[in-house]
Amino acid sequence: MKISNIPGGVTAARGFKAASCAAGIKYAGRTDMAMLFSDAPCAVAGTFTTNVVKAAPVLWDRKIVKEIGTAQAVVVNAGIANAATGETGMAMCAQTADCTARALGIPADSVLLGSTGVIGPNLPIDRICAGVTRMAASLSDTLEAGDDASRAIMTTDTVNKQCAVAFELPAANGEGAVEVRLGGMSKGSGMIHPNMCTMLGYVTTDCAIDRALLQRALSEVVPDTFNMISVDGDTSTNDTLLVLANGLAGNAPIAVAGEAYECFKAALTAVCRDLAVKMAGDGEGATHLIEMTVTGADTKENARKLAHSVIGSSLVKAMVFGKDANCGRVLCALGYAGVAFDPAVIELYLLGEKQTLCFYRDGCVQAFDEDAALQILSEKKVAFTCDMKMGDQAATAWGCDLTYDYVKINGDYRT
Amino acid sequence: MKISNIPGGVTAARGFKAASCAAGIKYAGRTDMAMLFSDAPCAVAGTFTTNVVKAAPVLWDRKIVKEIGTAQAVVVNAGIANAATGETGMAMCAQTADCTARALGIPADSVLLGSTGVIGPNLPIDRICAGVTRMAASLSDTLEAGDDASRAIMTTDTVNKQCAVAFELPAANGEGAVEVRLGGMSKGSGMIHPNMCTMLGYVTTDCAIDRALLQRALSEVVPDTFNMISVDGDTSTNDTLLVLANGLAGNAPIAVAGEAYECFKAALTAVCRDLAVKMAGDGEGATHLIEMTVTGADTKENARKLAHSVIGSSLVKAMVFGKDANCGRVLCALGYAGVAFDPAVIELYLLGEKQTLCFYRDGCVQAFDEDAALQILSEKKVAFTCDMKMGDQAATAWGCDLTYDYVKINGDYRT
Repeated sequence: MKISNIPGGVTAARGFKAASCAAGIKYAGRTDMAMLFSDAPCAVAGTFTTNVVKAAPVLWDRKIVKEIGTAQAVVVNAGIANAATGETGMAMCAQTADCTARALGIPADSVLLGSTGVIGPNLPIDRICAGVTRMAASLSDTLEAGDDASRAIMTTDTVNKQCAVAFELPAANGEGAVEVRLGGMSKGSGMIHPNMCTMLGYVTTDCAIDRALLQRALSEVVPDTFNMISVDGDTSTNDTLLVLANGLAGNAPIAVAGEAYECFKAALTAVCRDLAVKMAGDGEGATHLIEMTVTGADTKENARKLAHSVIGSSLVKAMVFGKDANCGRVLCALGYAGVAFDPAVIELYLLGEKQTLCFYRDGCVQAFDEDAALQILSEKKVAFTCDMKMGDQAATAWGCDLTYDYVKINGDYRT
Repeated sequence: MKISNIPGGVTAARGFKAASCAAGIKYAGRTDMAMLFSDAPCAVAGTFTTNVVKAAPVLWDRKIVKEIGTAQAVVVNAGIANAATGETGMAMCAQTADCTARALGIPADSVLLGSTGVIGPNLPIDRICAGVTRMAASLSDTLEAGDDASRAIMTTDTVNKQCAVAFELPAANGEGAVEVRLGGMSKGSGMIHPNMCTMLGYVTTDCAIDRALLQRALSEVVPDTFNMISVDGDTSTNDTLLVLANGLAGNAPIAVAGEAYECFKAALTAVCRDLAVKMAGDGEGATHLIEMTVTGADTKENARKLAHSVIGSSLVKAMVFGKDANCGRVLCALGYAGVAFDPAVIELYLLGEKQTLCFYRDGCVQAFDEDAALQILSEKKVAFTCDMKMGDQAATAWGCDLTYDYVKINGDYRT
């Protein structure tokens, strides 16, 4: 099956509209609210933060995903997280959903919510509701509307993140092949250590798919995409990833885990990986994307742990920022991942666009050409790979370097 | 029992001598090797890094501690870690121990070794052995010799760390009370996340104590002292903590876990906590010591996990550097510690020298006086406490802030 990148994001799939506005929540001179709307009710799947402290919109969305399983609109604000806000926070979720429902003529429990920003303060609910009314009147299915929405949900992000793909579901049941589209947007730059990460992510698709299968596909895709990135090891209170499927592609609904399901899952993986890697590369203050691939692990879970340990290491992150090929730090981070392996047999490499350097082999750090290392470490993406020589399982994790700007951004985030 | 601080470090206890020298391993214009020697053979206990990748001297010491249990000398170098050096690294340990044994007239397997610095390069073994010979000829039991030794093992540390205490073992078996002394030194500033941490620590005592009890005391003390600090979450390849007890205080040997054992353990706790907190406060680039106390936890292990999670959070560390009372980040870090609790009942406070501010209570971030918060966050030590309202277990962890200088130091460590 061929998965093709197509322009756009959340409005790339049929029947999805978006809007955004400057509601004046926190930032001056920029938009800070976004709305998504589907012409038809959508099957919805979601994954949420594992943090014990869950923001009000996370509790709101989780209830809808678990108990209802369908939705038709999403409203997101940036600037204030609506977390650690107690009953007041939950009441504000209900108010936001109510005014959205009235404006769009849909039930309040088909409105999903997302917030990102400072933990603690209450939402300025009057401005939120005024924003909802304005956005409901300006919904558009253009790619520009989707692009604008992806900008409106940014906090410390330096670039907006969106992605869309198209693929053909194979002919089945006497029907011909059907083109299905998926698009998505996400935000996230700091407090990123998924499980979920401090991220909001929204994927829309016109695929017709059973709700339980949609949730299963998402749950299978997240461990190797969004959950394999880290900016700073901090798992946020607000992480939310939602997938909305409105069925408007007209395919025979995917109701069993067969070939069509695998096609859909491959396309969902492509969108989620693209959005996740974009978040890692736009980590707060980042100048490099770090990619760590582990091969030859005994289990998939161990491969993930080892890769995650390296991209989470402050010392590895700082060395990439400094373009310093202090490769012992990568080895050290593998060593404290909580996975048993034999240091005498593993092989560690630094991968550049045009050349590969062996850093460690036969139990010893290897001599390497410092100039070549400096050249590789000067590329925007810095990739390492390590063969554990234990089996055939592999995993890749993505992170970013630790820079002065990360400290600057987070030393004074509220002001 | 009263534990009194006394001057000095590793030479404060009876019968311990120290020496140091500039062996020219890496640094110019400073000492980089230290030697400890006891007039009598010592019972020895140790804890070592849990990193799968263990430096050669860690493997060397672990074998002596486990299989022999006695030792009489320690040789330490700074600048090169002798880690990821394979068989060559082990052979250099043997050579160093051999030349130490010859110079001091003791068996080679009574010589413990420690190395700290860059991972990968081989030790300049000729310079190491020349240093050993010079140090063997200049051993001294003065406090100055101990002080000099604690400086010689520093890497990116900005201050040397040492500590000594004295206490009286209660009268027993017809004997009168006996004064016992413990002293120690440690180094560690980056790659600090114990389990053990990137640290070398050496505690000497003139107490007569059974070897198994000495190991038991150390194993009981480490979880609440050295293992409760973190600078950057990176568990090193070289972490080593050794306790040497030569029995020269003349007390009736402690052979059972009774009152005398508890006295000794309390004194060992005092020394280990002092050295650990000094390391946390001297974290690379640090401008603040961060202390997180958790009370009211259901289990001791959960209390430790919660406290550790906060001092390990990059966002908490950056906010303390920026003197920004962004208290939601402390709450968030508690939430992803992997411990279940009820966010609606916990209470979080910021503790200053003269005042206390409530940050979070009744499920909501509380309003607080920003000027008062700024004043507290301007103190050298920034302390938080959180009551989990689940039980009676407590723990304290220590860390430091994340600063521009941390990034600078670690972006270019090798040069």
